[in-house]
Amino acid sequence: MSEARDRAAGADEAVAALDIGGTKTAAALVTGQGVVLDRVTAATPGRAGASAVLATAADLVHRLGARAPGTRVRAVGVGSAGVVDSRTGRVLSATDVLTGWAGTDLAGRLRELTGLPVAVINDVHAHALGEARHGPAAGHETMLFVAVGTGIGASFVVGGGVLAGAHSAAGHAGHQPSPYAGSLPCTCGGRGHLEAIAAGPGLAAEYARRTGRPVDDLRSVAARAEGGDDTAREVVRLGGAAVGSAVGGLVNVLDPHAVVVGGGVTGLGAPWWRALRDAVRRETLPGLVDVPVLASALGADAPLLGAASLAWEAVA
Amino acid sequence: MSEARDRAAGADEAVAALDIGGTKTAAALVTGQGVVLDRVTAATPGRAGASAVLATAADLVHRLGARAPGTRVRAVGVGSAGVVDSRTGRVLSATDVLTGWAGTDLAGRLRELTGLPVAVINDVHAHALGEARHGPAAGHETMLFVAVGTGIGASFVVGGGVLAGAHSAAGHAGHQPSPYAGSLPCTCGGRGHLEAIAAGPGLAAEYARRTGRPVDDLRSVAARAEGGDDTAREVVRLGGAAVGSAVGGLVNVLDPHAVVVGGGVTGLGAPWWRALRDAVRRETLPGLVDVPVLASALGADAPLLGAASLAWEAVA
Repeated sequence: MSEARDRAAGADEAVAALDIGGTKTAAALVTGQGVVLDRVTAATPGRAGASAVLATAADLVHRLGARAPGTRVRAVGVGSAGVVDSRTGRVLSATDVLTGWAGTDLAGRLRELTGLPVAVINDVHAHALGEARHGPAAGHETMLFVAVGTGIGASFVVGGGVLAGAHSAAGHAGHQPSPYAGSLPCTCGGRGHLEAIAAGPGLAAEYARRTGRPVDDLRSVAARAEGGDDTAREVVRLGGAAVGSAVGGLVNVLDPHAVVVGGGVTGLGAPWWRALRDAVRRETLPGLVDVPVLASALGADAPLLGAASLAWEAVA
Repeated sequence: MSEARDRAAGADEAVAALDIGGTKTAAALVTGQGVVLDRVTAATPGRAGASAVLATAADLVHRLGARAPGTRVRAVGVGSAGVVDSRTGRVLSATDVLTGWAGTDLAGRLRELTGLPVAVINDVHAHALGEARHGPAAGHETMLFVAVGTGIGASFVVGGGVLAGAHSAAGHAGHQPSPYAGSLPCTCGGRGHLEAIAAGPGLAAEYARRTGRPVDDLRSVAARAEGGDDTAREVVRLGGAAVGSAVGGLVNVLDPHAVVVGGGVTGLGAPWWRALRDAVRRETLPGLVDVPVLASALGADAPLLGAASLAWEAVA
């Protein structure tokens, strides 16, 4: 029996944390100390509408409760894709991957389905909270988290909470002008944004443009880079440099105590990281070059731990 | 007798605010409500060393006190050029315009010279505090202030205070990568930063590059633009667009309740502002395009009012 299981057997209380993504919904039972007692996941029925997504989420919460009969589940914490208003509990906007998700009273409806208090937040912010409270950057007064995956998001943690912004939309770091992006069209309708060149699809498209050979996704580019394809290697370095340049600019503006970088694109490995760190150093002011730039160390648990910490706050 | 003088006659208490710049030191007597009772200024003896600068500052405080015999001066608030640590009261770094300023125990030595409690902060942050507390953006939960002058600085006001940063260096918005700056060398030693193209000297240099005709400073470019010089007009628009692009990117990251822009370069007038606002709109996410972008309305009083509010906090 693992240490975590051991504690599960003896945990009187826990919260249920949910990470609702476009393809997968993960759930975990988490103690007040951030120990994950149990995990379950399900496919997100994203195209079936908000009610189906909510039913799946509530079902995961019930399953976690049923598997831990001696543990009282106090509340639910949710990290969700889309722009989420933590104050009202509503989803303000979301991409089509989650059909009908925008406008959903996420907290209210999940409260009805589970009978528990519910706290909600955007998934990138949830990830940042998890890192800030339980990761290698824990204890820092401020922290900039950057997630580089299918899109590029960020979250600025200050004074123990995330900066939500006037429209709960803070953190769209992918939608900054990037000298690396030229006039490439961006998913937001703008042009020349960081996300257009340095997110996974942007890098794959850049490889296709440079070689005339379309690729399925970034994994193909990564495989070619490992196989010695010089163009693929250049594209990997370009991606790291573009993100690092933007991160360096934000370091000059925010002077954070630490930077944490996560997301699927970080899996490109050492050459990507080297290009990122070099670019951060090149961009930052002399007094700030030593800002710690750390890799997200909690993986898929980070958003669950962040959502769990919000849930605990809701019942504190 | 003006209304301000009228109140001065009857003000029992005030603080002395100082704005220490590279060429001029301004001082004012300010009430708890942010009313400026009196003003004095002196040339900053910037090349004569820190002791001379401090003596000038202290002398201004004494003069203000002597001119308001019925008013008790409670404390001194200082906005100063350079990177200033508000916690320790020390100047961490400064340009050569203020020789020997870096390392100065600004708060401690001014306390000795005046016998009053002293609160210190960087001058751009002081300006932002003044705007946030007494300007058209007052009352907003968060506010991004951007100062465009000889350099480009910023200050993010959140929860009633400024974001100081891990090294008191937050706000260096001029040192972000800008697609408008190419690989131009920046004052910080980096390349391609916003400040290198869009600050006053950057715009003047751009005009000289485009025409082959050197100009003294931005005022010459402004005069030529008004006189119908097409290149000068393009350079003015370029400056507004470059700042607006960076501001738009920061709006996507910070989602501030309002943006306030000040500094000498804003004096380029309507064409510069139009280019700036167009670029902000082009860059920002659809949900954020309505962020108010306001002109600094308090002028040279803003840093004095911000420094004064800090001084009042110090004796509260």
